[in-house]
Amino acid sequence: MADASSYLEHFFRPKSITVVGASRQPRKIGHVIFKNLIELGFPGKVYPVNPNATEIMGLKAYRSISEIDDEVELAVIATPSSIVPDSMEDCARSHVKAAIIISGGFKETGENGKKLEEQVLNTARNAGIRVIGPNCMGIYDTYNSIDTLFLPRYRLKRPGRGNVSFISQSGAFGAAVLDWAAEMGIGISKFISLGNKADIDEVETLKYLREDKTTKCIAVYIEGTNRGREFTETLREITAEKPVVVLKGGMTPEGQSAVLSHTGILAGSPQVYDAMIKQTGAIKAETAQELLDFSVAFTHQPVPHGDRVMVVTNAGGFGVLTADSISRLGLKLAKPKGETMQQIRSKMPPMVNLKNPLDLVGDASPERYKAALEPLTADPDIDGMIVIILVQTPEINADIVDVLTNIASFYRKPLVVTTVGGELTNMLTKMFTESGISTYPTPERAVKSMKALITYAQHHMRKGENG
Amino acid sequence: MADASSYLEHFFRPKSITVVGASRQPRKIGHVIFKNLIELGFPGKVYPVNPNATEIMGLKAYRSISEIDDEVELAVIATPSSIVPDSMEDCARSHVKAAIIISGGFKETGENGKKLEEQVLNTARNAGIRVIGPNCMGIYDTYNSIDTLFLPRYRLKRPGRGNVSFISQSGAFGAAVLDWAAEMGIGISKFISLGNKADIDEVETLKYLREDKTTKCIAVYIEGTNRGREFTETLREITAEKPVVVLKGGMTPEGQSAVLSHTGILAGSPQVYDAMIKQTGAIKAETAQELLDFSVAFTHQPVPHGDRVMVVTNAGGFGVLTADSISRLGLKLAKPKGETMQQIRSKMPPMVNLKNPLDLVGDASPERYKAALEPLTADPDIDGMIVIILVQTPEINADIVDVLTNIASFYRKPLVVTTVGGELTNMLTKMFTESGISTYPTPERAVKSMKALITYAQHHMRKGENG
Repeated sequence: MADASSYLEHFFRPKSITVVGASRQPRKIGHVIFKNLIELGFPGKVYPVNPNATEIMGLKAYRSISEIDDEVELAVIATPSSIVPDSMEDCARSHVKAAIIISGGFKETGENGKKLEEQVLNTARNAGIRVIGPNCMGIYDTYNSIDTLFLPRYRLKRPGRGNVSFISQSGAFGAAVLDWAAEMGIGISKFISLGNKADIDEVETLKYLREDKTTKCIAVYIEGTNRGREFTETLREITAEKPVVVLKGGMTPEGQSAVLSHTGILAGSPQVYDAMIKQTGAIKAETAQELLDFSVAFTHQPVPHGDRVMVVTNAGGFGVLTADSISRLGLKLAKPKGETMQQIRSKMPPMVNLKNPLDLVGDASPERYKAALEPLTADPDIDGMIVIILVQTPEINADIVDVLTNIASFYRKPLVVTTVGGELTNMLTKMFTESGISTYPTPERAVKSMKALITYAQHHMRKGENG
Repeated sequence: MADASSYLEHFFRPKSITVVGASRQPRKIGHVIFKNLIELGFPGKVYPVNPNATEIMGLKAYRSISEIDDEVELAVIATPSSIVPDSMEDCARSHVKAAIIISGGFKETGENGKKLEEQVLNTARNAGIRVIGPNCMGIYDTYNSIDTLFLPRYRLKRPGRGNVSFISQSGAFGAAVLDWAAEMGIGISKFISLGNKADIDEVETLKYLREDKTTKCIAVYIEGTNRGREFTETLREITAEKPVVVLKGGMTPEGQSAVLSHTGILAGSPQVYDAMIKQTGAIKAETAQELLDFSVAFTHQPVPHGDRVMVVTNAGGFGVLTADSISRLGLKLAKPKGETMQQIRSKMPPMVNLKNPLDLVGDASPERYKAALEPLTADPDIDGMIVIILVQTPEINADIVDVLTNIASFYRKPLVVTTVGGELTNMLTKMFTESGISTYPTPERAVKSMKALITYAQHHMRKGENG
């Protein structure tokens, strides 16, 4: 098999795209896909194919790909499943290089669908066409402006540019997580929905993302694989360079049986997956929330050199709960050096008790955070910091974003923020996240994400590599 | 000690309130409190006391309470701590019944503050004045329109009316959680911030809320108690009638030491608390998120009679993850009766696989949910349902709220909703929550909340009570 980075370029950097099944009817998925591609501003050519239309959204429509007087590199197929074999023949005749089959109605529906899928795949193989899908959402690429998701933007918000890439076996799962990421201000490089994996699967896409310069962290949702050994090897190779966070659906007997019913794939033993993920140095997520939270941490945070965490807060109660969480997850509360605490002492009101958690108390201002955090950044006995900021308190204002951003810009260890609340809190959280500071709405999620960073560091340092 | 329901009425149903330290300067807490009381529309009289003003927000200001030509039932004291002894003397002379001391600068600051607190308390005791605080946020009561929180509404949104009441030892913790509740559309009856607990504590407020008709569930954040035995007994008495969810800060050695530094209270052995909470039939929360999530469930959901959970979804992946979570938490996937499944079969497209999780697939409409859910509500082999609705999918519209609300109105078992995503999802979540359907943004939070309901039911059924 050729290097994934070469043939997958046809999907992510095509010169021209055709949408087969492009439609003028707003509710048709062929319409939504075509519209999204045009609106996102894909820089290459886009050709609508529809035998019953002469023009779609102001562009000339073609009866078939063969009629297009240009090379078509990528075909996005959104026709009813019964027509897909013809569409693929059309692709073959026209020397299309890659096809994304959005349409459902294949293997996932039973024996007849399975035969149909095999027929389509045979045509593609004979013509050297690589296929993503069928029964998928396709791809979303913020850097190359490709969007084949068939859900309109008012239903499914698209995240902006960023450095997480995300491979999902389940389309609906992927869509919901993208929507969530957009809401949280998390940027994405590439999203790939694998669907039935008739051809291209998790192994090839992982290899491609390994080489992708805009991908700093890879998030994977997978229910089962037909290539266990290659998957394991690929993970092992990649994680030495880029963190990979894996959420495996079907990690319990009940979940396994649901996977079988969902995808027809035997999920494989939970114990085997568990051990496999750990061995490869990938990071296991148990929930969709962890998948996103950990990916955010890996994208923006440096790798820590130990597990001693400093907690700074303006709310004692959340300091207590963070300490509880640090203890439950087996991390350590850092013990700052005496001289660090002396430096801080001189700038704090007498009420501030110099402990870890360091409670700056309810009237802490951005300046007080700065006065406490700067000496802490220089302390070698601290491996990372969790900064809790309740923005409901009277002295916190938007300056806190500048203070934290500035400190994070020179601090070479992880610094994550926790802020709990409603509207104003969400606003600040988005400001922090968009400034590259990983911010979590509860202390526990911040501590878990810190632990993910530490687990990654420990695995790869143990192996003698320079994290 | 008199029945809590009598003397605590002075706090929650006073005929008149004075704000001592009411101010015209917007940044002063005495201003914010006075303004909030007026704006919320407290129906009784409100008198500002400030020796340096003649009028505040259009109302005549008084030099002292004694000058007010009316009985004052409740005094809210927001002066600097050094003046609080005088203010309390003034309360005593004027036969005030109850006082909330917002001001900090007492026991929490050390030996001098402790003496000051004792002095104030002596004056109050001799005059028969009951005290909440000092060093607290006071109370927020949506039914009696009382709001003594010193944070302006643009920082801290206030939740609307509802049936959760919330006791918090930590003011900042309470404020952040209220703000969060407002954002999620969760209604509150009463919020009480206990502060230093110089007089009134968790035991008395719990007893009061037991009798409170608008309180269906009580959430408690506590770091330590000086009355372990009474606290345990009170919890035991109440939980037989009303669920109480307890989040205890300092449940690990690290957390305990943070509590000591935060409140000066020895947190007590984690094991003892753990066993105590279980024995009383209260529900333990480990995080602020669980505290809110479980309270929402208890407020709106009936008590289940078993642990067999049915999962209905329009996204297979989330069905798988929900099954994983059910298995991990020791609950069971229900096995619906054959006749139930037959009834559903006739109304489903062939792609729908009749299993649990029941995957209605990506093009499920509100009508398809209705056709599946109605037969399931009649099945005696199901003890509760988790309904997953991804609103990004093409056929979901606002009718889904009517469908679910209607089914929940006659279903006498728990039915909770999960919906994952961004803007549109949050909108629907709020609509569901405000319609009384407990809705969670991840499957795991829905399953944990279902488990809290089941744990409560099991404890109280084992004791021969009719849950």
